[in-house]
Amino acid sequence: MHTKNDLYLRALRGERVERTPIWVMRQAGRYLPDYRATRARAGDFLTLCKTPEMACEVTLQPIDHFGLDAAILFSDILTIPDAMGLELVLEEGVGPVFQKPLMGAADINELAVPDMHADLGYVMDAVALIRRELNDRVPLIGFTGSPWTLASYMVEGKGSKDFAKVKGLMFGEPELMHTLLNVVTDAVIEYLRAQVRAGVQSLMVFDTWGGMLSTAAFKTFSLAYMQRIVTAIKSDSDCKDVPIVLFTKGGGQWLEMLADTGCDGLGLDWTIDIAQAKQRVGDRVILQGNMDPVVMSTTGAAVESQARAVLDGYGQVGAQDRGHIFNLGHGIQPTAKPDNMRVLVETVKSYSPSFHS
Amino acid sequence: MHTKNDLYLRALRGERVERTPIWVMRQAGRYLPDYRATRARAGDFLTLCKTPEMACEVTLQPIDHFGLDAAILFSDILTIPDAMGLELVLEEGVGPVFQKPLMGAADINELAVPDMHADLGYVMDAVALIRRELNDRVPLIGFTGSPWTLASYMVEGKGSKDFAKVKGLMFGEPELMHTLLNVVTDAVIEYLRAQVRAGVQSLMVFDTWGGMLSTAAFKTFSLAYMQRIVTAIKSDSDCKDVPIVLFTKGGGQWLEMLADTGCDGLGLDWTIDIAQAKQRVGDRVILQGNMDPVVMSTTGAAVESQARAVLDGYGQVGAQDRGHIFNLGHGIQPTAKPDNMRVLVETVKSYSPSFHS
Repeated sequence: MHTKNDLYLRALRGERVERTPIWVMRQAGRYLPDYRATRARAGDFLTLCKTPEMACEVTLQPIDHFGLDAAILFSDILTIPDAMGLELVLEEGVGPVFQKPLMGAADINELAVPDMHADLGYVMDAVALIRRELNDRVPLIGFTGSPWTLASYMVEGKGSKDFAKVKGLMFGEPELMHTLLNVVTDAVIEYLRAQVRAGVQSLMVFDTWGGMLSTAAFKTFSLAYMQRIVTAIKSDSDCKDVPIVLFTKGGGQWLEMLADTGCDGLGLDWTIDIAQAKQRVGDRVILQGNMDPVVMSTTGAAVESQARAVLDGYGQVGAQDRGHIFNLGHGIQPTAKPDNMRVLVETVKSYSPSFHS
Repeated sequence: MHTKNDLYLRALRGERVERTPIWVMRQAGRYLPDYRATRARAGDFLTLCKTPEMACEVTLQPIDHFGLDAAILFSDILTIPDAMGLELVLEEGVGPVFQKPLMGAADINELAVPDMHADLGYVMDAVALIRRELNDRVPLIGFTGSPWTLASYMVEGKGSKDFAKVKGLMFGEPELMHTLLNVVTDAVIEYLRAQVRAGVQSLMVFDTWGGMLSTAAFKTFSLAYMQRIVTAIKSDSDCKDVPIVLFTKGGGQWLEMLADTGCDGLGLDWTIDIAQAKQRVGDRVILQGNMDPVVMSTTGAAVESQARAVLDGYGQVGAQDRGHIFNLGHGIQPTAKPDNMRVLVETVKSYSPSFHS
């Protein structure tokens, strides 16, 4: 019989909590020896994603090891385009590559929302299994890539430095770009609904590449579609009480616009001053973040000092007992030291209660 | 006999001008067939940098072709570390690599400010030659990398995705990091002074990697050293009338702090809304930028429309007749079309005068 820890969900609803909850983006990842062992057993990354028992296993590893306050579904942001027929391949060291990237209007016009059971059932099976194994110890977070981020990968075929292909489409054929973003958004909404029905207790949208856009293009090609997602989730009777967090990496200039979508929380990358962010968005949204992930590859003393700096920063604006969920400003890196994860969690657990009287 | 065009310098001094001046970061670059021909003749990139006649030739090519309003010294931001003994090698497609990157405290403590004549005389010779060949047609811009950016390359040994090594130094041994930044800053100040004495008419500091830092780290490890540069230039009798522009890529959150250094202008990357930037910094500094460089690889229609959008954006705040210098938000890419450069210059020259009554 486990103690139920709902600190994360209470903080996400804006309730007063006794200490700052913590989870870490990519907490089930290569920095962890157990993860590497399961990953080796799976043979390749996609098998790990597509085998619910293995996805469950790696999802739970960091919870068991470090006592984090939330679990996040182990999966990849590119499951939707894969299910749309683009054939995702993930190569260690190379990153995601689509065997069949979108080559033009014909490819885009053929795209359809995948069937959430036939094509993405493995994700929902993993969610259900993880919930059962978690047994309410901590809440489970579901997630998706943002429409702009998914569309970028679908057009580029892989990661990119300058996103020349997708921006070429955006600048040259904006209507076709919107056609693509619309079908991807339809799929994302169905995907999040299915995750909620399968058991996830909060949702996160990773807008990894929104920060590559100009402010005007961000509004038109990324924010507008995240707005549509938030509106759809909030008007769905199954989903409306499931908190949703938006995270645009490099989006520090756009926090007010992101908060205006009606989402429950914002992820902050490490470049953002969390005190200033809090002053800008007030109590409209909770804030999640935002220590520089590189610190996790350095010394325990640096981890403790930088974690305290984030807690102190949020504390400057005098509302530490609510509205903040500790996290890194981006995914934890393969070079991070597991011992630093222990220092991080211990620092947040021991240092934050003083702010929560 | 050429007409003297001092539009750029007048705009940079905040004077009223009859149209918006334009130059383009990396305007002497691989997108230009003439550049590629000179580059091929040089054999390798560093020979091109280190041979004043060739550096002069490529500096003037875009002026002759497109009628831009300023020339920028053709050189590399890594000439200082090269002169400090780190042995720069530039490989096409790989980027800059130091043969002898800094490996620890002993290497850092041995660094000394290079001799501007013995070690960097080729830069000053190029400046003098370019001024002679330009014959006052347009002003000549000199430049440097920011101390943080130079130090990043010196510790990493090359470009990096996450800057783990230099951030490891910064988080783990901040005093040693400051030792490094101090000697680099001393060298940068001497370098800019020497460029001015050789003939450059304005200065630009490229803080290419400042945007990878947290706000707190940016202030301590990048901004503080750019502040020292601005203060030194403004208190030098030879340099105090030479305008200096700071450009932190990814620094949109920090414009007020950058303006507070007392610099004359700020470069804006393409993610920044130029109207909002103008509202934030007011008349304290001029703004330079900021069209997404990827547009230059698309259609002429997109170039015209996006260039107008930048001019209109600045125009929204009602001060178009002063304070704006048109540029891209980052260096022009090798895939840019030379014809699009013609469209860009023509758009700025034909569309901006209506704002300048």
